[in-house]
Amino acid sequence: MGATIDLNSDLGEAFGSWTMGDDIALLDIVTSANIACGYHAGDASVMVETCEAAAARGIRIGAHVAYRDLAGFGRRRMDYSHRELRAETLYQIGALSACARAAGAEVSYVKPHGALYNRIAVDETQAAAVVEALLLARSTCGDNLAIMAQPGSVIERLSLDAGLPVIREAFADRAYNPDGTLVSRALEGSVIVDPDAVVKRVIAMADGEPITAYDGSPLAVRADSICLHGDTPGAVELSRKIRQGLVDAGVTVAADT
Amino acid sequence: MGATIDLNSDLGEAFGSWTMGDDIALLDIVTSANIACGYHAGDASVMVETCEAAAARGIRIGAHVAYRDLAGFGRRRMDYSHRELRAETLYQIGALSACARAAGAEVSYVKPHGALYNRIAVDETQAAAVVEALLLARSTCGDNLAIMAQPGSVIERLSLDAGLPVIREAFADRAYNPDGTLVSRALEGSVIVDPDAVVKRVIAMADGEPITAYDGSPLAVRADSICLHGDTPGAVELSRKIRQGLVDAGVTVAADT
Amino acid sequence: MGATIDLNSDLGEAFGSWTMGDDIALLDIVTSANIACGYHAGDASVMVETCEAAAARGIRIGAHVAYRDLAGFGRRRMDYSHRELRAETLYQIGALSACARAAGAEVSYVKPHGALYNRIAVDETQAAAVVEALLLARSTCGDNLAIMAQPGSVIERLSLDAGLPVIREAFADRAYNPDGTLVSRALEGSVIVDPDAVVKRVIAMADGEPITAYDGSPLAVRADSICLHGDTPGAVELSRKIRQGLVDAGVTVAADT
Amino acid sequence: MGATIDLNSDLGEAFGSWTMGDDIALLDIVTSANIACGYHAGDASVMVETCEAAAARGIRIGAHVAYRDLAGFGRRRMDYSHRELRAETLYQIGALSACARAAGAEVSYVKPHGALYNRIAVDETQAAAVVEALLLARSTCGDNLAIMAQPGSVIERLSLDAGLPVIREAFADRAYNPDGTLVSRALEGSVIVDPDAVVKRVIAMADGEPITAYDGSPLAVRADSICLHGDTPGAVELSRKIRQGLVDAGVTVAADT
Repeated sequence: MGATIDLNSDLGEAFGSWTMGDDIALLDIVTSANIACGYHAGDASVMVETCEAAAARGIRIGAHVAYRDLAGFGRRRMDYSHRELRAETLYQIGALSACARAAGAEVSYVKPHGALYNRIAVDETQAAAVVEALLLARSTCGDNLAIMAQPGSVIERLSLDAGLPVIREAFADRAYNPDGTLVSRALEGSVIVDPDAVVKRVIAMADGEPITAYDGSPLAVRADSICLHGDTPGAVELSRKIRQGLVDAGVTVAADT
Repeated sequence: MGATIDLNSDLGEAFGSWTMGDDIALLDIVTSANIACGYHAGDASVMVETCEAAAARGIRIGAHVAYRDLAGFGRRRMDYSHRELRAETLYQIGALSACARAAGAEVSYVKPHGALYNRIAVDETQAAAVVEALLLARSTCGDNLAIMAQPGSVIERLSLDAGLPVIREAFADRAYNPDGTLVSRALEGSVIVDPDAVVKRVIAMADGEPITAYDGSPLAVRADSICLHGDTPGAVELSRKIRQGLVDAGVTVAADT
Repeated sequence: MGATIDLNSDLGEAFGSWTMGDDIALLDIVTSANIACGYHAGDASVMVETCEAAAARGIRIGAHVAYRDLAGFGRRRMDYSHRELRAETLYQIGALSACARAAGAEVSYVKPHGALYNRIAVDETQAAAVVEALLLARSTCGDNLAIMAQPGSVIERLSLDAGLPVIREAFADRAYNPDGTLVSRALEGSVIVDPDAVVKRVIAMADGEPITAYDGSPLAVRADSICLHGDTPGAVELSRKIRQGLVDAGVTVAADT
Repeated sequence: MGATIDLNSDLGEAFGSWTMGDDIALLDIVTSANIACGYHAGDASVMVETCEAAAARGIRIGAHVAYRDLAGFGRRRMDYSHRELRAETLYQIGALSACARAAGAEVSYVKPHGALYNRIAVDETQAAAVVEALLLARSTCGDNLAIMAQPGSVIERLSLDAGLPVIREAFADRAYNPDGTLVSRALEGSVIVDPDAVVKRVIAMADGEPITAYDGSPLAVRADSICLHGDTPGAVELSRKIRQGLVDAGVTVAADT
């Protein structure tokens, strides 16, 4: 029997008169939509419409929560008090949840964005604030509210400790170090550009087979979901190929693994 | 048997390092808290903490939704498309709802703020967008979600037409024209400063007795809730006197009328 | 001897990670750059770089001042007190001026954007605030600081009364009513799409010859500068054709008329 | 002949409907006003009016530049690219400069605020971006534009290397470590609350005499300007006492040392 894998992508990152990415194309490829909540991108209109589009296709909706930094697209490291980060994360989940429910859907998971994603992979304090926010958000989104996180990260560990479901995420087109961390983008070969190679890796991840790490050694990357990028040239086409390659290989592409 | 009246006030209007009003004092006076949702005032931390404080006292929580205008405190008239206003209103309700639920409470009503409040009293298009937002927010806040509105306003009529519960609001310290509208602040005697006179008017409103309009004629002002101001000098003291005066007169001060 | 005309366009309307328009292409076409100042679009980095690009080509720099409304791109009507509008206009001019000077150039004119442009064409109070801001900005930009405005507008009249130089602006691709106002975009034929027809009209405007108004009557449109749009499909190509058409017809394309 | 010392304080930190500190009182005490530029606090109206008030009293005006973080009051550590920080610093100086010139004054110096102040005391990259911004701002503010900085900081060194005038700043009410750094607020005795003791220290700093460091050893703190705080209880009264104590001791309180 074949493996199952979820495909997720960042959506709803327009803001006001500015557009970003090709949401329409990606909505026909992914099975989980990380929808921006207005802090790094997205505005209320975009959120409502992206939720409607996702709901119409039965795509799982996630809150793409971020630092309050429109000018920096949530990509700049920022200090936050526990109190602020917990509250702002809860706020964003709640705002998106109302949009999702208005579209007849639910916020099923939370995926922290950009600098916040990177920070809570290693920082206990900020990770704890995000975990607390998710626990508080259960009264809004239900007890199945999950966190999408990198395997081996601090946020994964704290979430598991707190009893939160974790969606383990891997990156289709990024090289991995032998310890499971990503190879720095500054190094040659850190990004895999050959679609066939990317598809092979995703199939391996879905099947539970090891991939080849940067140093040539075998590496097991357990993943429930694969992150597809939508805002670079050729990204949509690559994403489409990945999905088709998975289907051709008998992998089921679906949100629930 | 005595009449019942609700007392509401704007709370949670701090932002970041800036404070506003005396929330702690008002929380011991009012029975409904209009909590800012981050668009004209309030930030996520303030929202969480104000919801906690209101919930701890059993005070009814309302979403004080507003135009996206921190610099103008939501007091500037702005044009909005139906799409934008509907979405932004829903967004704010959802954000506050998550904060309220985290505190074990619910958003029970929506009170539009400032320029939005004034606009939807007369503007069919903006009022319709707000009504639609409340209908969409039922999936988040439940079917009892009410609008707080001025009697005779367009938003009151559209809300009733749509089957939304309406909390009719009156102003304790403002003179009324014979047609039930407020006397412009530019006119002498538009604001009633004598606490005893204010208390008498509120008792009349609670009892269903007519008050005296600006021209001396009797005017029936049907009100479920009385708006108390908290951000002017002496406002808290006046509010306390109003509440005490009501209690002394045998009026029940409570949220559900 | 041939006529002279200035070509202006809105530039520097990116914000953070979001792009807008094709600035690089337009910079080789226009002779005046209306550079956003951070209130409706633009951020400090974009402003610095757009000033550098304009200065490198000898293009005249104008401050594209706007309402404080990033989410609405400055296109929404907003109320403003005299005090606020005067101060915010001055602020934006000052911010851009420092960027222009850092690039070895100057802010030569101010072009109000979007809803502000439309409002001060008819509103005495807001127009007066903008005029006062320009008078105050003389101590920063020099006494030749000009306003770019529509002929017949209130802002043109108040600016002339105050002794401010006025750059009269016309629209290349818009139909005109017999009274010199623009035909509403809601009407058929309000936008002229044939490049040759557009070029002919611009040549007539540059030569001081009448164009044909919407009702077929002749209309004199005195213009120092023609506004070219850059953010619609085909806009850059049309702009290039207009410039070439003008050059071919012996019209000098330059900022100073 | 007596020593001379400058007294500076943060002013113009209101925003929209929110107030902060007692600017009116401080304006009669200080000789240099660090005026917020809209990024951590302040809006255009406040900037114009604070410049007018400072100019009317002949007080030196400084640009209190900060990270773009209204919600965090510029007190949160943020990452910034060189390009962004250079541009945003220049933007803020330019905006305030136009307000100052409109009031018949000039921006004479730049004092980085909060988290930026602390970062550039130790971070070469961010300090270099600020220094470049000041060099670029000379075309707006003149070649005497100075930086206000802590003695021994990275920003002081880079500024001196670049030929920028430096105003060395000391803190009247803070204990110093023997190496000239401030004693952490977490330690007892880090803040000196006795006004007489504070005045004595300031006189010593103005006279070039050593003060007593936290460990009891003598420490020379060379200072051109003393920072007075205005936003804590009793701060204005303490500031007034400090100024009076200096005058009584024959120290000249003035901006130019």
